[in-house]
Amino acid sequence: MSVFSGRTWWKRAASWLVAGFVAWGATGCALLSGTDPLPSWSDGPARQAIIDFVDDVTRDGSPNYVPPAQRIATFDNDGTLWVEQPMYTQFAFMIDQVKAAAPRNPQWADNPVYKALAANDLKGALALGEKPLLDLLVQANSGMSVEEYDRTVRQWFATARHPTLKRPYTETVYQPQLELLSYLRAKGFKTYIVSGGTMEVMRPWTQEVYGIPPEQVVGSSQGVAFDGKSLMRQPKLDFINDGPGKPVGIYMHIGQQPILAVGNSDGDLQMLQYATTGPGRRLGVLVHHDDGEREFAYDRQSPFGKLDKALDEAPRRNWVVISMKKDWKQIFPGKP
Amino acid sequence: MSVFSGRTWWKRAASWLVAGFVAWGATGCALLSGTDPLPSWSDGPARQAIIDFVDDVTRDGSPNYVPPAQRIATFDNDGTLWVEQPMYTQFAFMIDQVKAAAPRNPQWADNPVYKALAANDLKGALALGEKPLLDLLVQANSGMSVEEYDRTVRQWFATARHPTLKRPYTETVYQPQLELLSYLRAKGFKTYIVSGGTMEVMRPWTQEVYGIPPEQVVGSSQGVAFDGKSLMRQPKLDFINDGPGKPVGIYMHIGQQPILAVGNSDGDLQMLQYATTGPGRRLGVLVHHDDGEREFAYDRQSPFGKLDKALDEAPRRNWVVISMKKDWKQIFPGKP
Repeated sequence: MSVFSGRTWWKRAASWLVAGFVAWGATGCALLSGTDPLPSWSDGPARQAIIDFVDDVTRDGSPNYVPPAQRIATFDNDGTLWVEQPMYTQFAFMIDQVKAAAPRNPQWADNPVYKALAANDLKGALALGEKPLLDLLVQANSGMSVEEYDRTVRQWFATARHPTLKRPYTETVYQPQLELLSYLRAKGFKTYIVSGGTMEVMRPWTQEVYGIPPEQVVGSSQGVAFDGKSLMRQPKLDFINDGPGKPVGIYMHIGQQPILAVGNSDGDLQMLQYATTGPGRRLGVLVHHDDGEREFAYDRQSPFGKLDKALDEAPRRNWVVISMKKDWKQIFPGKP
Repeated sequence: MSVFSGRTWWKRAASWLVAGFVAWGATGCALLSGTDPLPSWSDGPARQAIIDFVDDVTRDGSPNYVPPAQRIATFDNDGTLWVEQPMYTQFAFMIDQVKAAAPRNPQWADNPVYKALAANDLKGALALGEKPLLDLLVQANSGMSVEEYDRTVRQWFATARHPTLKRPYTETVYQPQLELLSYLRAKGFKTYIVSGGTMEVMRPWTQEVYGIPPEQVVGSSQGVAFDGKSLMRQPKLDFINDGPGKPVGIYMHIGQQPILAVGNSDGDLQMLQYATTGPGRRLGVLVHHDDGEREFAYDRQSPFGKLDKALDEAPRRNWVVISMKKDWKQIFPGKP
């Protein structure tokens, strides 16, 4: 993940440009030559429903044709584009910032939330209530300029490893979804991330990993304030882009309704409802984590990525449910 | 302004696409053939400084070269891209919504702010304080879905006329700025609006008028909430994208620092400070309203678009100050 090390921004930008051409080139050539643009997807109803939808809204003369400017596709991130177990990567990062900031904050020594986190007892920290945990996290992740924070994010992603998958977090992304993102873009869609995670922890790496530039990343955010020179991070949450917040975030950032939304949890329920209500053909997609062997198996009771109401609503609304076990031949890049 | 009447969205989209090609074509051809891409700008230091800057950051081999992904240009709207006198167009629109909603709100009859607005006495309404006025405006502009509101905006712009210029508001835009926007885009810039006005009142027409799509319009916003089917407008302001709020809005929406910012008032001061602080070559530009004959002459004392601190700061920071009188041969489209 050399992008996160000391290379200058223009070198990174050049590599992104090249990566963009390569990514488009592969998918574009696949489409032109008739080879499979979704090689990691098994033949089956999920894959077929997605391809049918895309063909129908992009084919000249189709009664459901949608012009490129309205081809908006929104993707949740955690559990939809990459792994969210055993906890959201965002939390792993923010907790590491608590530990890093502890020497400057001796008053935390008596804080039971801090004590639990310092002992790597996330369950214990969560048991003390969501608010005290969030308060400590946003405090530790504030007080610096947005540029300093951006550097911290890049450095962390360059070195941190997923605890059980033993690889950089940016390699815990799903290969079939990388193919789907490229396929949609080759078909004239604009692809957005719409995540409960904070924008500032995603934007430094989404272009390289997903081909999605910073301005197409919609997420939660911690407050920032301008001091005449820099934007300084404030110790408060500004917006929570989750559940009913997702349609709000989409409206504020994009100003248009998506025609395709992909999620995996009840936090994505309202995004899928919003995207699939209204005139014209629309599609909702849910990723179902049912592959305990290659990834993680969970749904209705999971503390992270709980999928309950949305799973019940899917058949009533004709949302596509992807079985990771059956529909994806390969889960992660480079390891078939 | 047929775009605001009953044509379907796909016809509008098609006309935008055509308009986009035409706009690019004109500027692109001007650049290729060596003809002037800024014909409404007089030869002078302002025009020269802008062209020098653009050449310097876009020329291959320039020490100040900036790759396309970082060529972010942000423009204020009121007073920068279009007329803001005798009052912000946003206010004219919202006050008309107060009048339209009055029959459904008999309780307003005793509200002194309402009485002043009903008598077209904006000065009197403002004298009662900013908060009671804003409260009434956001109340009258809430309670409907975002789609209904969008239709209301389009209908209003299709029929309303500027009180003294006697033309549709979308024709009170500045011809030299339309040329500058096209020129920048032809040079690989991504052009954004960053306005104190609300996004929802601008987005329905910015693509056709400025060539700027909805997702590149950053502004203030009234709250919205998702009811399971629609986003409903709430009677409260959600974010004020003015003054120190502008760098915040830019960070949240774009996630990158602009290298060029154009404004005209103290409400743009922090946007210009933000854009022109940091590594690499950067440019701040202020439009100075000094042409009382062709437009309006005002600066330090104006209730709308006051330009005082920013005008003092401009020479210290090498910001370009555009004299509308001297630097612009033509103010409005179609009327040289």
